Amino acid sequence: MEHSAEDTVGLPPATAVYTGDRDHATRIRVMEFDVHQLEEREVTTPASLKGCTDTTQLSWIDVVGLSDEESISELCTLFGLHALAIEDILNTSQRAKAEEFGDHLLVSANRVELTFDDGEPVLGFEHTSIVSGPGIVLTFQERDGDAWEAVRKRIRGGMPRIRSARADFLAYALLDAIVDEYAVVVEKLGRVAEQLEARLLDDPESVSVPEIYVLRRELTELRRKAWPIRDALATWRRSEHLDDAARPFLNDLQDHATALVESIDLYRDLVMGMVDLHMSGVNNKMNETMHTLTIIATLFIPLTFLTGLYGMNFDNMPELHTRYGYYIALFTMGTTFIGGLGWFRWKGML
Amino acid sequence: MEHSAEDTVGLPPATAVYTGDRDHATRIRVMEFDVHQLEEREVTTPASLKGCTDTTQLSWIDVVGLSDEESISELCTLFGLHALAIEDILNTSQRAKAEEFGDHLLVSANRVELTFDDGEPVLGFEHTSIVSGPGIVLTFQERDGDAWEAVRKRIRGGMPRIRSARADFLAYALLDAIVDEYAVVVEKLGRVAEQLEARLLDDPESVSVPEIYVLRRELTELRRKAWPIRDALATWRRSEHLDDAARPFLNDLQDHATALVESIDLYRDLVMGMVDLHMSGVNNKMNETMHTLTIIATLFIPLTFLTGLYGMNFDNMPELHTRYGYYIALFTMGTTFIGGLGWFRWKGML
Amino acid sequence: MEHSAEDTVGLPPATAVYTGDRDHATRIRVMEFDVHQLEEREVTTPASLKGCTDTTQLSWIDVVGLSDEESISELCTLFGLHALAIEDILNTSQRAKAEEFGDHLLVSANRVELTFDDGEPVLGFEHTSIVSGPGIVLTFQERDGDAWEAVRKRIRGGMPRIRSARADFLAYALLDAIVDEYAVVVEKLGRVAEQLEARLLDDPESVSVPEIYVLRRELTELRRKAWPIRDALATWRRSEHLDDAARPFLNDLQDHATALVESIDLYRDLVMGMVDLHMSGVNNKMNETMHTLTIIATLFIPLTFLTGLYGMNFDNMPELHTRYGYYIALFTMGTTFIGGLGWFRWKGML
Amino acid sequence: MEHSAEDTVGLPPATAVYTGDRDHATRIRVMEFDVHQLEEREVTTPASLKGCTDTTQLSWIDVVGLSDEESISELCTLFGLHALAIEDILNTSQRAKAEEFGDHLLVSANRVELTFDDGEPVLGFEHTSIVSGPGIVLTFQERDGDAWEAVRKRIRGGMPRIRSARADFLAYALLDAIVDEYAVVVEKLGRVAEQLEARLLDDPESVSVPEIYVLRRELTELRRKAWPIRDALATWRRSEHLDDAARPFLNDLQDHATALVESIDLYRDLVMGMVDLHMSGVNNKMNETMHTLTIIATLFIPLTFLTGLYGMNFDNMPELHTRYGYYIALFTMGTTFIGGLGWFRWKGML
Amino acid sequence: MEHSAEDTVGLPPATAVYTGDRDHATRIRVMEFDVHQLEEREVTTPASLKGCTDTTQLSWIDVVGLSDEESISELCTLFGLHALAIEDILNTSQRAKAEEFGDHLLVSANRVELTFDDGEPVLGFEHTSIVSGPGIVLTFQERDGDAWEAVRKRIRGGMPRIRSARADFLAYALLDAIVDEYAVVVEKLGRVAEQLEARLLDDPESVSVPEIYVLRRELTELRRKAWPIRDALATWRRSEHLDDAARPFLNDLQDHATALVESIDLYRDLVMGMVDLHMSGVNNKMNETMHTLTIIATLFIPLTFLTGLYGMNFDNMPELHTRYGYYIALFTMGTTFIGGLGWFRWKGML
Repeated sequence: MEHSAEDTVGLPPATAVYTGDRDHATRIRVMEFDVHQLEEREVTTPASLKGCTDTTQLSWIDVVGLSDEESISELCTLFGLHALAIEDILNTSQRAKAEEFGDHLLVSANRVELTFDDGEPVLGFEHTSIVSGPGIVLTFQERDGDAWEAVRKRIRGGMPRIRSARADFLAYALLDAIVDEYAVVVEKLGRVAEQLEARLLDDPESVSVPEIYVLRRELTELRRKAWPIRDALATWRRSEHLDDAARPFLNDLQDHATALVESIDLYRDLVMGMVDLHMSGVNNKMNETMHTLTIIATLFIPLTFLTGLYGMNFDNMPELHTRYGYYIALFTMGTTFIGGLGWFRWKGML
Repeated sequence: MEHSAEDTVGLPPATAVYTGDRDHATRIRVMEFDVHQLEEREVTTPASLKGCTDTTQLSWIDVVGLSDEESISELCTLFGLHALAIEDILNTSQRAKAEEFGDHLLVSANRVELTFDDGEPVLGFEHTSIVSGPGIVLTFQERDGDAWEAVRKRIRGGMPRIRSARADFLAYALLDAIVDEYAVVVEKLGRVAEQLEARLLDDPESVSVPEIYVLRRELTELRRKAWPIRDALATWRRSEHLDDAARPFLNDLQDHATALVESIDLYRDLVMGMVDLHMSGVNNKMNETMHTLTIIATLFIPLTFLTGLYGMNFDNMPELHTRYGYYIALFTMGTTFIGGLGWFRWKGML
Repeated sequence: MEHSAEDTVGLPPATAVYTGDRDHATRIRVMEFDVHQLEEREVTTPASLKGCTDTTQLSWIDVVGLSDEESISELCTLFGLHALAIEDILNTSQRAKAEEFGDHLLVSANRVELTFDDGEPVLGFEHTSIVSGPGIVLTFQERDGDAWEAVRKRIRGGMPRIRSARADFLAYALLDAIVDEYAVVVEKLGRVAEQLEARLLDDPESVSVPEIYVLRRELTELRRKAWPIRDALATWRRSEHLDDAARPFLNDLQDHATALVESIDLYRDLVMGMVDLHMSGVNNKMNETMHTLTIIATLFIPLTFLTGLYGMNFDNMPELHTRYGYYIALFTMGTTFIGGLGWFRWKGML
Repeated sequence: MEHSAEDTVGLPPATAVYTGDRDHATRIRVMEFDVHQLEEREVTTPASLKGCTDTTQLSWIDVVGLSDEESISELCTLFGLHALAIEDILNTSQRAKAEEFGDHLLVSANRVELTFDDGEPVLGFEHTSIVSGPGIVLTFQERDGDAWEAVRKRIRGGMPRIRSARADFLAYALLDAIVDEYAVVVEKLGRVAEQLEARLLDDPESVSVPEIYVLRRELTELRRKAWPIRDALATWRRSEHLDDAARPFLNDLQDHATALVESIDLYRDLVMGMVDLHMSGVNNKMNETMHTLTIIATLFIPLTFLTGLYGMNFDNMPELHTRYGYYIALFTMGTTFIGGLGWFRWKGML
Repeated sequence: MEHSAEDTVGLPPATAVYTGDRDHATRIRVMEFDVHQLEEREVTTPASLKGCTDTTQLSWIDVVGLSDEESISELCTLFGLHALAIEDILNTSQRAKAEEFGDHLLVSANRVELTFDDGEPVLGFEHTSIVSGPGIVLTFQERDGDAWEAVRKRIRGGMPRIRSARADFLAYALLDAIVDEYAVVVEKLGRVAEQLEARLLDDPESVSVPEIYVLRRELTELRRKAWPIRDALATWRRSEHLDDAARPFLNDLQDHATALVESIDLYRDLVMGMVDLHMSGVNNKMNETMHTLTIIATLFIPLTFLTGLYGMNFDNMPELHTRYGYYIALFTMGTTFIGGLGWFRWKGML
């Protein structure tokens, strides 16, 4: 959360406030297309978009950069979005959700990215919104990402389904690209988890608890972001305006999202078990240490006592003056030592 | 719980008993408004409120201070509230809930506040109730809080939605202000959790288990208060009297409340993991300590035995009288010491 | 469970067997009332109750002492109770439930009481049953408790709602009194938990694990008894015979029961965390102990070796005969000691 | 699982294969009765059962011993059972379930028995099936048990409900007898748990973790067998063919089954806590041990160093030759010793 | 996951990409049969399959090897499969699911196999798909497995149900064979768990935590694969096209799948408890070790001090020159030693 929740207390609901911290100029990229034609342009003011829903073409208006609250509000109003929808679009800490406002459907979701900072996995999330209405798809993002570029290429490449399809299918394709990013991240984190596990099984002490902890935290975070995507899809599927042809695709996507969450849970389960692995490894090492100490100390302590005994300076210590006293003492010590060793072996401690 | 549950055993249900401990005089603040007009006044007796639902304006009657059970009962009776509703208004240990009584809807919720006592987070809750009926919103609180002041300012500022809207929208705005307070507190506790985590990852021993425990307890408490708000919203949304225009706002609020609970759960999960982090840190330190002791003791114990051996006073110890005995002994000790070091290194303990 | 489950194996279902161990004579107390009149009497044989449902008054027949299976069966038969209802009434290990048998509704619940045996909390449960039918409420209890006495007082005091109301309302008031007892017990156990917590945070070793364990067990037991009360209320609310006026009261009671279970869960969560607190406290103490030992032993072991060295009795040990040998030895030891201290400080162990 | 699952891979579904390991001859006991008459006989071949559903009497055909797959298949076919029902009857690892096949209802459940092997509780399960159809109840069991003998006695004793009732009631009574056996076992295991707990609270070391573990495993196993009985009852209650008079009895039985599972969960919760109890007890003992060692060692190590110091053989050690050197040394040691004791007391370690 | 999820980001949904790593040539085996006839053949190109749904026979077309994406797409198109179905067939990381596309039903599931690598259990999964349409069953697998061979034998053997039945029954039989494989694997893993448990109860140190961890991981993995099979069956049972005769068989299969998951959970629960068992065993051993050390050290330390005391070289140590000094010293030491032993016994440490 970039802006403090405190800053927005007492604001009227449905106030258009950008809560992120990326202060980029807002760019508006427009693609208008049907099976036969495709036109791409970039506009600077929402006003120049008037009338773009009057054609039979599908318009995809992609807004990058959310810090210019005013133009975004203007644009949203132009297409008749509900005030709450606008708030959701600008609220970067919004969890994934789908909601119908009249004949528009708003889907919010976070794009995800995994980078490695000094070998430590760091998750980055970008708030995005997809609005699907009759003849139009509006998308809002803070920063241009790779995922949607791929969709753009497919449109340019003239892929028939996406070119002929209605707004719902394009919206689906965009969300699908986001979910695919999650799959990539889950796979990468899974690889991190498996490496950690391999190292742990090899040498439990080579992995520190903070390493395990950080991985667990990242997985928890990822799950928290991925989980509501399923709810959003369920809401979307219940939408009355939904194109029947898009339905199997949404089913399929929900399926992917479910599998994602299950994979995350599997890895979380693995990671939980790793703490036990590490702890038991450390414990074993400690036991070994104590063991060594115990055996050495226990064997020598009585011997040292004996040497002390015959190192005393009493005048009258008859043993000291016998001929074989020293050898008898040596023999006694040797016997004690060997006896001790035997006792340890008998107790299974050697 | 300020009053003991024991005190109310055997009382007839629906008895108006104030269970809090704030003995403030009761103040009644009234705002009557529509899009065009706004009138604010403060009254001292419920009786003077008669007739205020006869106009087409919306009246917001805010009662601060619940210890004067009699006037509150009188006021509630004046507006035709169910006896059980009155009990809920005065029962400060009531969990958040919404309930319909005839054409009134009662929403109870706790306002929340986080203060820091000696750096330790302390949660404070204030019981509030919102009653929404035709042409009227009644609110009850123990102490005047900041959250609703912001709503008052919006009314005074003439924000059109709140000025034109019906009782449901005002009630929603008031509950929204309460939920916003939760968001602030969750964010603050989250910051505390993240600081604790940073300190732990830096030095596990710098954080004590009681610190972690207290944070966990606060999060548990907060969750317990926040969770039923979702149920209350669900009940409210199912209400037949609900204004259709207010519905998307309630959806949105439920969404916020859900996200809140999920955030709390995320932090609770983090905090659970912290105990492991701390324990493993302490454990590691202990291992290191034992390690040091073991190595020093194990290396010197045999040497000390040797010195004891040749400190014995037997008459007949030929080694003592050889020319190089002492040097041989020194050499033996040196060899033993170095051998021990080598053995530890070989065992990976050095 | 007082009687062994084994004793009832093979018995036909719906057999009237008292499974408790209180061998009190059965007393039958009758209250017959409407808004205007109230008559109280005590009868000895069920037979004398004949005809008491023929009036327009409500009769509350309270049976105390369940060991006389025969008269109870007789009484139940008199009022047309289902054989299974009779079995439930006499089965003291029955969990809380509500069930409709024709036009009777049977609610079973356990009264609860918390006593302190040597400072240790001990829960006691009493099996009670409430049967609500047209014009009659039958209650069955093993021992007369305080909770229902309060209801009796309200009837005698002429409280209008209870005097005018139908059987459903009286049954509700009786169950409400039982739930209130749970609230008292939860509050008391909560206080015990908070004291334990305060002691733990002050000195983790002052609390033993068995103390924590016993509290946890009591909370678990209490939860197990309180939980089915919610189910019973849900069943009751679905009953077709239920008086509409009683419905909001049942809603309210269900609300209380839910809040109870949530409170218990909160305390259970607290108590779980306490084991960690205690363990880490004990661990810290142990670490400190080991620390002390390690430092003392590590510092002195090399010194003692040195003294041993120069305590050997070799003839040819030139150092012994030098003028400043002793002082050099002392200096060496002092240096070693101070060096050791420095090393510990450098390692952060001092 | 007696027969390996591997043996049945690739077999067509609905193949009649007995998967148990009890190779008893199959006995068929028949009871035909109504309110007035009762006839008991034992037959050897299924063929002789032809026509027994033509009367108005209820026939209970009890098949003991499942290893003769052929006669059982023949018998099942005689009464028109579905091939899958036959498979379920012979599959001894079948979990409890109820399923309707046309106008037959098949209920499978495991009878349970607790024996003690060397003081260690051992659960034994016997697969049984109850088929209820018009005018007939078929039961299948591997070995004759006590539970159904009691039902048989009630039939012989002429208990009216069971004699007059239809197939559903007899089937219910048979399942009820099985659930009663579970109650007995839960009670016995509960007693074992409570004894273990008492021993643990008395002396945590007197109980070993394997003992706790075994009890936990038994409870888990029991829960796994008891849980599906509830589902089976739910399915049965939804059956369209179900006799209305039997419904309250099934409700009651479901209630018992639910209470059973809750009791098991309570004991499992207890048992989980016991590991903590034991561990903390062992830990305390270890702490005490370390404590003793630390105090003794820490007190004597410096003294022993001093004695070593003055045991050195340097020529020039002036202290040795003073008159009171020895006494001063003794005094120094005494002071050090007492100082050490004081320090330990001050640190709260004594 | 063989192919990286990254490789498929940005691909249009419903793209036919094989994500496995088995590069086998694709074989197509066809069985056409009804009750009277059976014809088996192997074809090389999908084109030669044209017209095989025109007969009244059921055709089972089994495709082994999925790497030739083109022919598979061709074949799928030939039978009118939805593009998404084709994607699911080729996506080897697809979780088990059932989905209706028009009058086809697609069931995906993983075949499972357990091998032992160096005594360590290793799970292998093979992605398979079953498409059931009017008069046709298409199956897709990466590698030919044993399970379906058994079904083939039953067809050849002329088993009436499978020969006469429609596509649904054959599809069911194929899925049943897959579930049977799971049962075998669960049983084998259960045996591994039980052996581990037996070894642990015998000697907790003979089992290492990594061994337990690996087993737990395998069970988690298996559960993750088995769980969605239940959902797939639920979807299938809701299918409108489903043959009524097949319904009881699907119920039965769902039952088996549920029992499987429950068995896995039971074993997982066992395995969780094993970590405790191991840890407590290791702990006990360590305690014993420390115990030994403490007793030996504590007994000898004071004695050694005494010997040191009388080994000092002070001129004036009168005790040294008394006649029985030595014997008194010996006696003192003996007494101290015996006193120490007594103290330990009194403290219960011996």
